[in-house]
Amino acid sequence: MKRIGLLTSGGDCQALNPAMRGVVKSLMFSGEQIEIYGFLNGYQGLIYGNYRMLDVSDFSGILTRGGTILGSSRTPFKTIREPDEKGLDKVESMKHNYFKLNLDCLVILGGNGSHKTANLLREEGLNIVTLPKTIDNDLWGTDMTFGFQSAVDIATNVIDNIHTTADSHGRVFIVEVMGHKVGYLTLNAGMASGADIILIPEIPYDIDKVIEAIEQRKKRGSKFTIIAVAEGAISKKDAKLSKKEYKKKLESSPFPSVSYEIAEEIKKKTGQEVRVTVPGHMQRGGSPCPYDRVFASRLGAEAGKLILKGHYGFMVGYRNREIVKVPLEEVAGKLKKVEPDSSIVKEAKMLGISFGD
Amino acid sequence: MKRIGLLTSGGDCQALNPAMRGVVKSLMFSGEQIEIYGFLNGYQGLIYGNYRMLDVSDFSGILTRGGTILGSSRTPFKTIREPDEKGLDKVESMKHNYFKLNLDCLVILGGNGSHKTANLLREEGLNIVTLPKTIDNDLWGTDMTFGFQSAVDIATNVIDNIHTTADSHGRVFIVEVMGHKVGYLTLNAGMASGADIILIPEIPYDIDKVIEAIEQRKKRGSKFTIIAVAEGAISKKDAKLSKKEYKKKLESSPFPSVSYEIAEEIKKKTGQEVRVTVPGHMQRGGSPCPYDRVFASRLGAEAGKLILKGHYGFMVGYRNREIVKVPLEEVAGKLKKVEPDSSIVKEAKMLGISFGD
Amino acid sequence: MKRIGLLTSGGDCQALNPAMRGVVKSLMFSGEQIEIYGFLNGYQGLIYGNYRMLDVSDFSGILTRGGTILGSSRTPFKTIREPDEKGLDKVESMKHNYFKLNLDCLVILGGNGSHKTANLLREEGLNIVTLPKTIDNDLWGTDMTFGFQSAVDIATNVIDNIHTTADSHGRVFIVEVMGHKVGYLTLNAGMASGADIILIPEIPYDIDKVIEAIEQRKKRGSKFTIIAVAEGAISKKDAKLSKKEYKKKLESSPFPSVSYEIAEEIKKKTGQEVRVTVPGHMQRGGSPCPYDRVFASRLGAEAGKLILKGHYGFMVGYRNREIVKVPLEEVAGKLKKVEPDSSIVKEAKMLGISFGD
Amino acid sequence: MKRIGLLTSGGDCQALNPAMRGVVKSLMFSGEQIEIYGFLNGYQGLIYGNYRMLDVSDFSGILTRGGTILGSSRTPFKTIREPDEKGLDKVESMKHNYFKLNLDCLVILGGNGSHKTANLLREEGLNIVTLPKTIDNDLWGTDMTFGFQSAVDIATNVIDNIHTTADSHGRVFIVEVMGHKVGYLTLNAGMASGADIILIPEIPYDIDKVIEAIEQRKKRGSKFTIIAVAEGAISKKDAKLSKKEYKKKLESSPFPSVSYEIAEEIKKKTGQEVRVTVPGHMQRGGSPCPYDRVFASRLGAEAGKLILKGHYGFMVGYRNREIVKVPLEEVAGKLKKVEPDSSIVKEAKMLGISFGD
Repeated sequence: MKRIGLLTSGGDCQALNPAMRGVVKSLMFSGEQIEIYGFLNGYQGLIYGNYRMLDVSDFSGILTRGGTILGSSRTPFKTIREPDEKGLDKVESMKHNYFKLNLDCLVILGGNGSHKTANLLREEGLNIVTLPKTIDNDLWGTDMTFGFQSAVDIATNVIDNIHTTADSHGRVFIVEVMGHKVGYLTLNAGMASGADIILIPEIPYDIDKVIEAIEQRKKRGSKFTIIAVAEGAISKKDAKLSKKEYKKKLESSPFPSVSYEIAEEIKKKTGQEVRVTVPGHMQRGGSPCPYDRVFASRLGAEAGKLILKGHYGFMVGYRNREIVKVPLEEVAGKLKKVEPDSSIVKEAKMLGISFGD
Repeated sequence: MKRIGLLTSGGDCQALNPAMRGVVKSLMFSGEQIEIYGFLNGYQGLIYGNYRMLDVSDFSGILTRGGTILGSSRTPFKTIREPDEKGLDKVESMKHNYFKLNLDCLVILGGNGSHKTANLLREEGLNIVTLPKTIDNDLWGTDMTFGFQSAVDIATNVIDNIHTTADSHGRVFIVEVMGHKVGYLTLNAGMASGADIILIPEIPYDIDKVIEAIEQRKKRGSKFTIIAVAEGAISKKDAKLSKKEYKKKLESSPFPSVSYEIAEEIKKKTGQEVRVTVPGHMQRGGSPCPYDRVFASRLGAEAGKLILKGHYGFMVGYRNREIVKVPLEEVAGKLKKVEPDSSIVKEAKMLGISFGD
Repeated sequence: MKRIGLLTSGGDCQALNPAMRGVVKSLMFSGEQIEIYGFLNGYQGLIYGNYRMLDVSDFSGILTRGGTILGSSRTPFKTIREPDEKGLDKVESMKHNYFKLNLDCLVILGGNGSHKTANLLREEGLNIVTLPKTIDNDLWGTDMTFGFQSAVDIATNVIDNIHTTADSHGRVFIVEVMGHKVGYLTLNAGMASGADIILIPEIPYDIDKVIEAIEQRKKRGSKFTIIAVAEGAISKKDAKLSKKEYKKKLESSPFPSVSYEIAEEIKKKTGQEVRVTVPGHMQRGGSPCPYDRVFASRLGAEAGKLILKGHYGFMVGYRNREIVKVPLEEVAGKLKKVEPDSSIVKEAKMLGISFGD
Repeated sequence: MKRIGLLTSGGDCQALNPAMRGVVKSLMFSGEQIEIYGFLNGYQGLIYGNYRMLDVSDFSGILTRGGTILGSSRTPFKTIREPDEKGLDKVESMKHNYFKLNLDCLVILGGNGSHKTANLLREEGLNIVTLPKTIDNDLWGTDMTFGFQSAVDIATNVIDNIHTTADSHGRVFIVEVMGHKVGYLTLNAGMASGADIILIPEIPYDIDKVIEAIEQRKKRGSKFTIIAVAEGAISKKDAKLSKKEYKKKLESSPFPSVSYEIAEEIKKKTGQEVRVTVPGHMQRGGSPCPYDRVFASRLGAEAGKLILKGHYGFMVGYRNREIVKVPLEEVAGKLKKVEPDSSIVKEAKMLGISFGD
């Protein structure tokens, strides 16, 4: 008999449900008796003891469904050790609820921030297994995260649509792709959709180089240019600022995001019409793509196996095409980023894509 | 032997290519010899004599392709009679090019503005046949325009995706749907995707009614609310302003669009998090949906028939499930709008959708 | 207070759930108290008293979901008056269950066969409202049925995919589209996807004309030909047989369906490779398309209105772009078919599509 | 200056165009002058000197297009050394055309069979670079082939659709997925869509085990069962036959494919209704998925690099998330298969999926 807690934390993404289904199905088919406690809205549910008893049948038919049946929320790690507005000690409260329910294990589906908290709970003596969830693919210790390929599919589809209309009109189009710190999503969606220029946080851009790339396209006879811009794209000039200075700059900016600033600069310097599209949260929604469904199901199954064996303190990750377990202390607090001289970036450049660098 | 000019004008949309393919195929299969002159980038091509001779094979394989093989541009009707920056008389120039090429007919694919110019050219003695192109479905004289259903599909898909993520997080989400003057697209996409509140230009909203609808949803246990807002949504207060005053207000607004203003008001009055998504030009792009492909092909075929018979001066439209010809003078300058007391609006209200009125 | 029965009958299709959601939501928002009895698996549930009490929340979130939450089954009308294997009088049993539950009304979502039974129940004194469900669009009394446009989208997508591969290889491809008696689905999917030849039950084909069309394409330089064949396509020769003779012929045929027979004849007479694709039940599945979601929701809302007013004995249909009520006795037993000389068929021919006639 | 030949061979698949675009773009942007000879319809074009001079612009806009702009055909390796019907020595003819055009290199996009011929041409002194194309993912020496993920997406979508309808009706549904020798496609599409039973060539099935799995589902309350069957699925009994005997058995079978035979056995032994869906060539068509577009573009770029360096005799493959070059002699004649005891199969079983073994 195993008593399992489940929670989904952070910005939601597309294969949370298949991953949880994988955990529960693999436990069920192992013949082990299980009791499942679903904490609602991420760590909030664990802090405030807000949970729902779940039945195996709750996980039936959710393989294709986006979102999470448990709800999610962001609980900032920075303040996790501070008491809440009513004076409640959040970490103690989580421990209390875990031990009160006499759980064998807590399965946490989360991204970067959530893994810091997961590791903290491990240090506090909880049995933790985590699954790497994020559309950003920026988790250390795993080649891939679920949600990523689904988000690539959506962002690609957005740029594909813009492509048709750009082709007819002859303009510069900017599509703002999610990703504040890491550019995998923008890089892949940009390559998949034939974007001409890709701007990502890891490779600061020079606006003059961006404009040069637009002008060169015109010379080669192309009426339009499509730029995939990550939310966190940054100019070479701004990259030299301190974190504090840059934050200040952003806050005092008249533009809702960096895309609008880039658009304005291009308009000024080239006189061309520029249109900005912001698909936003759309990139987190919809049915998980088949790749993510298989991937999340496999991760879930292997998480089930770890639980059966009582191997705790791991993230179930993916390396060199095999599902592996990665110690939580190795994962927490680290970010996986696009290497500016990695093969995929070089290949993108070989295909004529400019990074504005 | 028929010498045909073709041009696509205004904001592009999804079934321009199938419609042109329909015209050309129906002429070809009639056995009539044809010469096709494709004017590039809308009326610009006609004004400046910028065209390409097209072959029947140019129309092969374009049934599924978005955009327009001819390019498009907006040429404002208001200034059509004013000379261009070099002093060129635009109307005379269009007539000149038409008659110089000895065309039998000019086929114009366009929306509201383009139909005014089309009718002007008719009055000037040109043989004109038009096809009703617009994602707004706001053309007078036809029940349906091509591009509309494809845009509904895309906007619906955007809201569907937001739905999954909204469901997980518990927030107010605003999706800004195209449509400055007319709300068909927002109304249909909103109904198709289960939006809770729909705000369209034809039904000015009261922000307190909008907030009341959000609060009622909360009382019924719903964590989130989705609002589909047309670009041209307007508050009851603003609807009382003169056109001039309202324009001034918009220009001095700190918000990029009305959606952001609504978002701000909801945040202030309810304290809830609000997210805005702007799919923008994405709604004009991508492959035409099957409905539009059939519809545009049928319109194109009937346009071919009019040309063969020498019946000029008509838009090919759709009424009561039949393709009909509508005199251009009836179409030009009129706008088809959502009637606030039409059955579809009443039915939407019966389903619990609030229009904030 | 209204006590409502709901049942979905016949082959399932894509917007059954949105339609039921429409009925329930419109009753709920009217302020009327309601009790909902969902009969399981079509008329079977009514015959055997197999039902589930449903709550308004059961209809939440099903707008985008294919299938039917009630299950469906085919109950042949021909034997409806015959007792079942245990001697149960089926009609009496349905009446018994209806009156025992003290229902105010029974809402039936069904196609052609189901409407005969619905009308029979009306004659027997039950209060009936029906909704026109079928991917075939063959119901008398309504311009459109829900499920149809979703099925067109799927069948079109199948032929689109075949198009790419056909283009690369150079073969004859046959895609078998659903429709035993009526060709609307094949006609629309064929036109939407640019099929070269369309064979439907209403227009018997001559195999030599089909081959002639293939040969003419070759002469014009086309490497491949795509034929959309309705399940019920019939040759001119076979169309002269009596119903009995034709049935016998089909039963003794070595081919699983008419597509394979046509394929064989083309192979023999032209020596060309022919491939058959049978998407089958796929055409009934998946999420309803936005068109169907709006349409089914509107029909559902108007059905709710009829129930509130106590107007029974009607199918809620669609005519000239308005939702209307159609007396059941007018609908039952009649089939709406593609007219061989209707505008859409003529337009298809104008576009060069052969019907093999 | 480089003179490059291009050919696409074998059954077509979804990312042939992006891969060729990648090769050409990377050569173009390297600054090298290039001349491109596109051989039509696979090796046929090389044998008969049937080619088209291509321009860089021919590769513009094809990133999203399925099929191949060069056409394809199967040229059986077994008879490649036999003269054609007119006595032409095929191998000599290919060499002749290669050297006559003074090519620097021939880029071959193909699957298993095509790689045998590619290696033969290498042995004959031609400079060869190949790209791994196949929806089967069965090429030795690479973790992944392009076309595979796109086909998984399509087959998954088919089963998703069947799922909705299965859910409503309560039947056994068989979906026949492409793959005569290798089951990767069926395995992945089956896992992605939640198939209950997966039958692949590498794991011979016992029909009694299949039926047992159906019965167990019934006991657990499931009305329906979905079986994903690879074209080359084989029973344990038949797996004991010699190749010759099995071929004979298949030829004399009354069933068009093994799916129909399995359907018949289930019907007989359980009395349940069984429906077979055969998506067929649909799985090779349509726009390449974003994953394949990025992947094929990267492979193409690296092929361009090999050509620039004059490194010939390699397939450009993918191992451990890096693009690598694999000597052709290692690839030719070997098949990569699903290992029955690989992790993914084990994980599928942990999720409750039966392989009928």
